Amino acid sequence: MNQNYIIPDEWSIIEEGFDRERVMSSESLFSIGNGAMGQRANFEETYTGETFQGSYIAGVYYPDKTKVGWWKNGYPEYFAKVLNAPNWIGIDVEINGEILDLSQIEISNFRRELNMKEGWLGRNFNAKLKNGIEIEVNIIRFLSLDLDELGAIKYEIKPINNSAKIIFKPYVHSGVTNRDANWEETFWEPIISGIEQGFAFVQARTFKTGFNVVTFMENTVFINDEKQEIISSENSQTETKIQFKHEVEVNPNETTSLVKFGGYTVSTNHSENELVNAAKNVLVQANELGFEKLFQNQKEAWAKIWEMADISIEGDVKAQQGIRFNIFQLNQTYLGKDARLNIGPKGFTGEKYGGSTYWDTEAYCLPFYMATKNQEVARNLLAYRYNHLEKAIENGQKLGFKNGAALYPMVTMNGEECHNEWEITFEEIHRNGAIAFAIFNYVRFTGDFSYVPEKGLEVLIGIARFWHQRANFSKDKNQFVILGVTGPNEYENNINNNFYTNYLAKWCIDYTVELIEKIENEFHSDFNQIFDKTNLSKSEISEWKNVADNMYFPYSEEHGVYLQQDGFLDKDLTPVAKLDKAERPLNQKWSWDRILRSPYIKQADTLQGFYFFEDNFTYEELEKHFNFYEPLTVHESSLSPCVHSIQAAKLGRMEQAYEFYLRTSRLDLDDYNKEVEEGLHITSMAGTWMSIVEGFGGMRVKGDQLHFTPQIPKEWKSYSFNVNFRNKILKVNVSHEGTEFNLEGNENLEVIVNGKSTEVKPLIKTI
Amino acid sequence: MNQNYIIPDEWSIIEEGFDRERVMSSESLFSIGNGAMGQRANFEETYTGETFQGSYIAGVYYPDKTKVGWWKNGYPEYFAKVLNAPNWIGIDVEINGEILDLSQIEISNFRRELNMKEGWLGRNFNAKLKNGIEIEVNIIRFLSLDLDELGAIKYEIKPINNSAKIIFKPYVHSGVTNRDANWEETFWEPIISGIEQGFAFVQARTFKTGFNVVTFMENTVFINDEKQEIISSENSQTETKIQFKHEVEVNPNETTSLVKFGGYTVSTNHSENELVNAAKNVLVQANELGFEKLFQNQKEAWAKIWEMADISIEGDVKAQQGIRFNIFQLNQTYLGKDARLNIGPKGFTGEKYGGSTYWDTEAYCLPFYMATKNQEVARNLLAYRYNHLEKAIENGQKLGFKNGAALYPMVTMNGEECHNEWEITFEEIHRNGAIAFAIFNYVRFTGDFSYVPEKGLEVLIGIARFWHQRANFSKDKNQFVILGVTGPNEYENNINNNFYTNYLAKWCIDYTVELIEKIENEFHSDFNQIFDKTNLSKSEISEWKNVADNMYFPYSEEHGVYLQQDGFLDKDLTPVAKLDKAERPLNQKWSWDRILRSPYIKQADTLQGFYFFEDNFTYEELEKHFNFYEPLTVHESSLSPCVHSIQAAKLGRMEQAYEFYLRTSRLDLDDYNKEVEEGLHITSMAGTWMSIVEGFGGMRVKGDQLHFTPQIPKEWKSYSFNVNFRNKILKVNVSHEGTEFNLEGNENLEVIVNGKSTEVKPLIKTI
Repeated sequence: MNQNYIIPDEWSIIEEGFDRERVMSSESLFSIGNGAMGQRANFEETYTGETFQGSYIAGVYYPDKTKVGWWKNGYPEYFAKVLNAPNWIGIDVEINGEILDLSQIEISNFRRELNMKEGWLGRNFNAKLKNGIEIEVNIIRFLSLDLDELGAIKYEIKPINNSAKIIFKPYVHSGVTNRDANWEETFWEPIISGIEQGFAFVQARTFKTGFNVVTFMENTVFINDEKQEIISSENSQTETKIQFKHEVEVNPNETTSLVKFGGYTVSTNHSENELVNAAKNVLVQANELGFEKLFQNQKEAWAKIWEMADISIEGDVKAQQGIRFNIFQLNQTYLGKDARLNIGPKGFTGEKYGGSTYWDTEAYCLPFYMATKNQEVARNLLAYRYNHLEKAIENGQKLGFKNGAALYPMVTMNGEECHNEWEITFEEIHRNGAIAFAIFNYVRFTGDFSYVPEKGLEVLIGIARFWHQRANFSKDKNQFVILGVTGPNEYENNINNNFYTNYLAKWCIDYTVELIEKIENEFHSDFNQIFDKTNLSKSEISEWKNVADNMYFPYSEEHGVYLQQDGFLDKDLTPVAKLDKAERPLNQKWSWDRILRSPYIKQADTLQGFYFFEDNFTYEELEKHFNFYEPLTVHESSLSPCVHSIQAAKLGRMEQAYEFYLRTSRLDLDDYNKEVEEGLHITSMAGTWMSIVEGFGGMRVKGDQLHFTPQIPKEWKSYSFNVNFRNKILKVNVSHEGTEFNLEGNENLEVIVNGKSTEVKPLIKTI
Repeated sequence: MNQNYIIPDEWSIIEEGFDRERVMSSESLFSIGNGAMGQRANFEETYTGETFQGSYIAGVYYPDKTKVGWWKNGYPEYFAKVLNAPNWIGIDVEINGEILDLSQIEISNFRRELNMKEGWLGRNFNAKLKNGIEIEVNIIRFLSLDLDELGAIKYEIKPINNSAKIIFKPYVHSGVTNRDANWEETFWEPIISGIEQGFAFVQARTFKTGFNVVTFMENTVFINDEKQEIISSENSQTETKIQFKHEVEVNPNETTSLVKFGGYTVSTNHSENELVNAAKNVLVQANELGFEKLFQNQKEAWAKIWEMADISIEGDVKAQQGIRFNIFQLNQTYLGKDARLNIGPKGFTGEKYGGSTYWDTEAYCLPFYMATKNQEVARNLLAYRYNHLEKAIENGQKLGFKNGAALYPMVTMNGEECHNEWEITFEEIHRNGAIAFAIFNYVRFTGDFSYVPEKGLEVLIGIARFWHQRANFSKDKNQFVILGVTGPNEYENNINNNFYTNYLAKWCIDYTVELIEKIENEFHSDFNQIFDKTNLSKSEISEWKNVADNMYFPYSEEHGVYLQQDGFLDKDLTPVAKLDKAERPLNQKWSWDRILRSPYIKQADTLQGFYFFEDNFTYEELEKHFNFYEPLTVHESSLSPCVHSIQAAKLGRMEQAYEFYLRTSRLDLDDYNKEVEEGLHITSMAGTWMSIVEGFGGMRVKGDQLHFTPQIPKEWKSYSFNVNFRNKILKVNVSHEGTEFNLEGNENLEVIVNGKSTEVKPLIKTI
């Protein structure tokens, strides 16, 4: 771990004391979001110290020109850049003529709190300005779950040692910059700005993509909770910025506050000429409720989320804080309300990794959303890919595939590939398998087979076709091989016969064929319709089968393990434990070629296959592979520790499982990878949830039963979580004394613990 | 071939008839250069049709920011961009108030000639303007070999059907743009412009690199060869552009001409505050000589170059034109006068491939310059790398190598790596071997061993160290392996145990050890000095030897060939001949992953090893490997056909050898690769020379003897070439009747033809 300043607390992320060096880390850690928008914890007032400004709107991006050394055919012309959106939070503050700027003055009692239980960000501090005035400042900010185009700020100032003339200068501003930009490039084209009494807006459009956004605000000033008449004589207005000037005289120990409502209305949700009206509408609703009621609603909305999604841990505050931080951030990023959206790897906390959808969604996030939300949310995540099937087929065509073979993009915003490294875009094709696996996983967990004939089978056929065409027959091996791929372990590129990829390819074909047969038998009219639409034939299917049945898997007799890829044993297999710590993380210390020829594994690769297809391998096989690969694994992907935690738990190595758990759950809080400034690792947070539920709890679905093999880290007293299994809410509590199961209402569910059926008590209400 | 409009001629490149579609191709093909600067054959006057403007100054470049999808450690921060230099050739022409613009009017008798014998570019045409005036235009342009900062233009106009008011508007202009640029980026910062009587200049500096360039001109106007008083009342001047206005009244069938002297003085050759004076100085010299004398000198200077470098072919005009075009362009690009310069792959004909030095220099260009110039030129090319040794060691350090291991850059301007694709920059390490081989080749050819103790051995020690560290021991194979490389065949990336690379690595170590021993015995004081300087020890050398002696080479028993790399036989080995022609060239039709997993070979790879180390393999081995690999080779690198031509000749397959010869010699003239618009393939032109001398002529050096196995394509009557072998000039003439050898003066040289000593006649002068 690389930092240790976050104060352990069960429900909040807390920072005490002001340290300029920590500003950018805290901007990431204290980020807030409501699924539709989100933002880093930038200060409202002027801050001239080092900061990383970021406010993001779901689905709004910019297609940056692809630039590579030598152009390679098939590259996407553009790649998606995450855009810093216009600023609506800004409130410059002037006190007796001096601008409040935390980087310039003496600060005491600084405290920041991200209250996860209630969904708000708080900040308070005492400041002594250069002009001698001492003030106490208290700020609350939240992004409303109720009105998801709205954010609210209450900015309170109390002069301590003297009366003060305080000027609040709230603004909206579209002239923002991106961290990730060439030179002085800008991405927002200003359209118009406007003021109508207290309402102000700036409208701007993204270049190229043409997203039209109205950024708006309305403000109220109070002294001691008494609303003040606002005189806005000296407003300033340009095409990109409107700034009001609200002046109040405040006596010592009186409190003045500015309440600012602001946010965005976006052309993805409104017609362009209705954006300003839509903004006014949001404010009408907000004003009707008022700050306090909105705040109350916010707390209630978060209570509802927690009711289902919470995992509580007794006896280990840091572990508790970690898991709640993960669950909180996931829910800030994606709530499953809008089927066009998805779960970006940095959520609304930074710019890194353009594009919102990776295979992370299917491999890591789906199980979390499946178990903690209405199953419609998981279905939306699957439908997102169904809706992009046509573009995946086009993408396949660009790379030379035919006949409806679909290759889903590695990174996407709208179904088109928007990443541009050949070893990733063209070769990290295992993503296609994860998308197929998600369909299997969804059906297994929800029991909702209807998705398959409706949508899933078409996706699977496109994917099976891809694998069939992507493999080629090796005369030398007398089997089918898959050449030139990048596996989940991205510390290998353009390798041949990656075990994970080959296994997944075979599985995809087998599963598709199995479902085709089932649908032919059980859903005859669907079958005919799909057969026609996809132009499928029996002979094509038998060609697929030929590939699946004769797939090659690299295997070492000497070690008794499948090899990550051909030639893996040519490497110098020195374990990670023997590496000098100064060499870590490898991706910051070693050049790429050195990483590539090393045996070091970024994240579960062969073991990812053992995770997905656990039932196809014996305990002894898992043990052998874990013993062979884990010691070579550097876990430099946020997606790595969780899978290893689950497998360590399965192998009964609870200490190791707990270590991995801590690493995954506090990856950002403790900044393991020295990069939290850049934003949080959102998608891996679902892996933390899996580490507890599937790892320690040992939850598995078998047919209509839920199976558990509960264990508990010795550091904990107990832990409990909920699972929405087929619309039945099961509450699980594991302690050193044993495991209790409660089912909401009078429902029935067969729960198997360590292979034996167990008692499930009914509950009228779980919590 | 993709075009067929160049008129066959022994000494000139000729185009007849004006076709707008061919303008950009011709701009490349008719390029001129003098080693210090060069330019595409852009028109002097206004041209509003499609054009690719390019004028280039040797060694002047711009370090563009590296942009990649996800940053990889060790990337160079910048990569070199070839910069279009300010324009000095511009002469706008107005005739009776109408601007002359070939894209807008009727043109007849258009003819363009690149006279290679004499080194000038000519253009003439008749034009009928919209205002009814008919004119005849005649333009000569050359870049002086004598004064290499000077270019000269004679622009003649003759009104035919009426008298005309003709305004010449010659200009210099630094506000030029690059084809390869982000959006509207510019690369030249204007500094100042100035006019002193007829002399004008614009001074500008490249951003970042700070090359300071004065672009200058001076003009004279004639009517019927009578110099006219110049009245320049209406000159226009800005910071970036000066344009004069010279007006003349011309009667029908009288000729007016503008003689323009112009060019560059550059801060690489003068102190910055002397640039303007230096420019004036150039003009003083030019004016003293005058256009006609300068032109005469130009012809004489080229005659001197041809005296030594020419290859004449009887009975095949196209083949003759091809080889002369190659020899001419090589000499336009690099004359060996300035040891800081090198041979860029596009010379002065386009922007593609930033950077001036690739392994092409050592592998392809060195033999040509060695045999056709004073051997000091070849020594300069070697010394270029010696001068960069320290930077190559630094480059190695960045990639994790130690103890003086040197990795030369893949592409460079000044010794630093300036290319940024990991699979090239980090992995195409065979370049290091070519640099070592060049030392061997130089010593073998020139007999000048003195270079080794003076400079060469230090370079070899750095390279041997690199290979020693880059290999690792495979327990599985019980041999040393080299993982993660890209061979000469760039249609494979990140492969393991590339035969060529492994072979070269072993050879480099063996050769270095051999030289160390020789120097220890024969140059004792040098030996001690080098041992100290490089901190070498006997035990280190024996570690190298251990790697070289136990190097692994992939081999197929079934096919009896070394494999290009591990796993090569897993590919679908369908030969190129069976590919649909619509799929070619692959690099324009197939996505990169498809190319990578295919067996198709861009250029000689295993066979490149057979070319370098021919003596280490039997005829039967060469035949087997050629039969295995050539049918899989697409020759989509300009460097490919020449090696195959030489080997086909060696195997007695003269028809195939001739086909390859035509392809390499007329690659650009006939635009085989559909890209001549972008510029010419300069470095491969040396391969054309090798195809004749080493291929058809079968010239080899063995000890102090020159060996030949002469053959002749049936299409030719005879061919002859010269070789400067150890400062003796041998003239070789091969015909169907036999081969004649003449040696300049009364020197002796033992020449072996088909294994037998042959008569060499003395000549007082070869030509």
